[in-house]
Amino acid sequence: MTKKTNDIKYIMSQQNGRRITKEDVIFGINKRAGEMIKEKGAENVVNGTIGALLDDDGELMVLSSVDGAFRSLSPKEYAAYAPIGGTPEFRSAAIRAALKGFKPKTARIRAVSTPGGTGSLRNVIVNYSCPGDKLLTTDWHWSPYNTIAEEHGRSFTTFKLFDEAKKFNVEALKSKANELLEKQNQLIIFINTPAQNPTGYSLTNEDWEKTVEYLNTVPADKKVTLLVDTAYIDFAGDEDEYRSFLPYLEQVPPNVLPVLAFSMSKTFTLYGLRCGAMICFAASEAVADEFVSVCEYSSRGAWSNSPRAGQEIIARIFADPRLLEKVTEERKEIRDMLLARAKAFEDEAKRAGLNILPFDGGFFISVPCKDPVAAGRELEKEGIFIVPLAMGLRVSIASISEEKCKMIPERILAAITKTREDK
Amino acid sequence: MTKKTNDIKYIMSQQNGRRITKEDVIFGINKRAGEMIKEKGAENVVNGTIGALLDDDGELMVLSSVDGAFRSLSPKEYAAYAPIGGTPEFRSAAIRAALKGFKPKTARIRAVSTPGGTGSLRNVIVNYSCPGDKLLTTDWHWSPYNTIAEEHGRSFTTFKLFDEAKKFNVEALKSKANELLEKQNQLIIFINTPAQNPTGYSLTNEDWEKTVEYLNTVPADKKVTLLVDTAYIDFAGDEDEYRSFLPYLEQVPPNVLPVLAFSMSKTFTLYGLRCGAMICFAASEAVADEFVSVCEYSSRGAWSNSPRAGQEIIARIFADPRLLEKVTEERKEIRDMLLARAKAFEDEAKRAGLNILPFDGGFFISVPCKDPVAAGRELEKEGIFIVPLAMGLRVSIASISEEKCKMIPERILAAITKTREDK
Repeated sequence: MTKKTNDIKYIMSQQNGRRITKEDVIFGINKRAGEMIKEKGAENVVNGTIGALLDDDGELMVLSSVDGAFRSLSPKEYAAYAPIGGTPEFRSAAIRAALKGFKPKTARIRAVSTPGGTGSLRNVIVNYSCPGDKLLTTDWHWSPYNTIAEEHGRSFTTFKLFDEAKKFNVEALKSKANELLEKQNQLIIFINTPAQNPTGYSLTNEDWEKTVEYLNTVPADKKVTLLVDTAYIDFAGDEDEYRSFLPYLEQVPPNVLPVLAFSMSKTFTLYGLRCGAMICFAASEAVADEFVSVCEYSSRGAWSNSPRAGQEIIARIFADPRLLEKVTEERKEIRDMLLARAKAFEDEAKRAGLNILPFDGGFFISVPCKDPVAAGRELEKEGIFIVPLAMGLRVSIASISEEKCKMIPERILAAITKTREDK
Repeated sequence: MTKKTNDIKYIMSQQNGRRITKEDVIFGINKRAGEMIKEKGAENVVNGTIGALLDDDGELMVLSSVDGAFRSLSPKEYAAYAPIGGTPEFRSAAIRAALKGFKPKTARIRAVSTPGGTGSLRNVIVNYSCPGDKLLTTDWHWSPYNTIAEEHGRSFTTFKLFDEAKKFNVEALKSKANELLEKQNQLIIFINTPAQNPTGYSLTNEDWEKTVEYLNTVPADKKVTLLVDTAYIDFAGDEDEYRSFLPYLEQVPPNVLPVLAFSMSKTFTLYGLRCGAMICFAASEAVADEFVSVCEYSSRGAWSNSPRAGQEIIARIFADPRLLEKVTEERKEIRDMLLARAKAFEDEAKRAGLNILPFDGGFFISVPCKDPVAAGRELEKEGIFIVPLAMGLRVSIASISEEKCKMIPERILAAITKTREDK
């Protein structure tokens, strides 16, 4: 590791293989955006950094039906400890929320509550890999994956998400996975779909078919855990259609364990309540029971029980068909708003000639470029705050109005062009 | 490790040095208590296993002032993501809640939010020790300490909490700590005080004086982190008096870092909302800044941000002097009720000749005995459910009425006597 000025010194603490910085990059950008809003007014600033769905005035959108359920909680329902793995009612409801109409034919489905989706990612890493292991994900990915891995003595290797034709690069997945499986007996693969953060890409059923075909070639003495991070599943489009990949999770051999990390943050607009569930598609009762035991042990050893309020809210929604219907309708409204913003951005990018990555849905659109930090800095001067990633810029269309989505592609292109010429 | 029948098999998962069982011991006892309540009625069953303050009818007690604050939260206040280390208002309020009137003279105080006290314990372990390290705590201790350590590749060694005179055994602490510091450069010591779980013991200021005297002898090239788990601090007695040990945390050398694990679960009856804070007493700004950076990184890598609702409630209470006063009054009422139960148990134990460990306050009283499992099983037959620990039985006086507290000492003694004779 080369040391950078933002890295901390370790005076009393132990580094333990991690790279810890003084200030989070996104936090820094957000702070500067806030300062400029104070100075120049919200209408003159585009804050496209925030990973939550905001209305056109920049206010958090919370489904009113969900807020109603929150308000009806009795003291016991939020203040009592939940069981370590979640209340029984939540566990069932989380499975219904994640799978909707899908009925598994062979897989044994179990859910364990976690504080948000992050807790699920952490528990999968701790239980299905060993310290020192390499894990595998796509080159475009949510950067905290690295933090979660490093925090637990693991690290990620990546494969190219897109091939030359901008299609899902299953060949790259195969080749990297096989390479890792030659060196270690167990491998975790993280795939964020549908509506990936940061690109908005969703694996097609054809992509899934090829992925499952590969997974059936994994040697029987190797173990693969396929973590499908579905944080944005309900913001891609029709909720049933975007669950049509679920049957593929039953077409893997017994040495491959699919696990969904299902977050209630976006689906129920409950970000700050920290509610999520990890859901296994196990090949046998024994593997499903083991999943529950190891994940509960892990939870006990990291945060103990998960927050109860969100669990009670989700359970209540699924116990009341009319409330469920209302939540689903309200969610469709905010999803339609989000997808209209996406379309505005895409259309304008096309018109202006700005190259974006294949977007299908979700909160973010990514723009590949050579020097994202320089382009980001250039855009900040004009009051446009977006996140520089390793290979491009990430725009949160969830946090800016349709009008601003129309306005910025041309300016992003100009900034990229300018910073390329400066070199 | 010898394998026991309750241990799980590792089919798809990795053991990674942990011992994972199918069913948690306390969960099992609780389940049996519930079954007997259904069969014989609540009045004929004593469920002394639960770590929460219940009224005489077995219902969770939530301070009405705190419930009022909960109900006044706007959607944004519970549904938005909190910053990783907590909202600024919560961080200040948590320090005020933990320190009350105490004003540090030299120590740099900082707070980082965590999901309950458990999150604080986890973050201290990950950041202030290395994988493989031995950590140190008392022989009588809360058993999840072991789970948290094992989950992160560490383990606990213990020293005897009490000497022959039933006083805090500072000699044992010294000797074990010195032994460990010969083998490793850093050491974390967990002390749960005031009102320890499971014994109810509180370190006296004399105990603290001797402990601090020892800490001043730690070689300058060694690092010690002293984690004070204060989960029950507000259920020992007068809240200011029980904070009179805080000045000792400023009397340690710069290579010793005191950290409080401050839980809002008991103090604000907010167990299930998962709200807590880790608070450092750092010798310098640099060590305090480092504390914040490493704990925030660790949080990001385990659960991301902590739940926001509890943070907003605590911030609101400390922003409103009248509300704070009401919360403090209501807490005194439930504390007085708890301490009356304790007195009833102690008096009756004395009368009956039941030997208990030095109790000062809190939710639990412990009874040392040779075969806790057998004695516990015997008591279950009579409808008395308490938790067998390695060296005795733990009674939750928080979860049973004063009447039941009077009734059970004699029966515990009888069960211990019977199971001793059976041998």
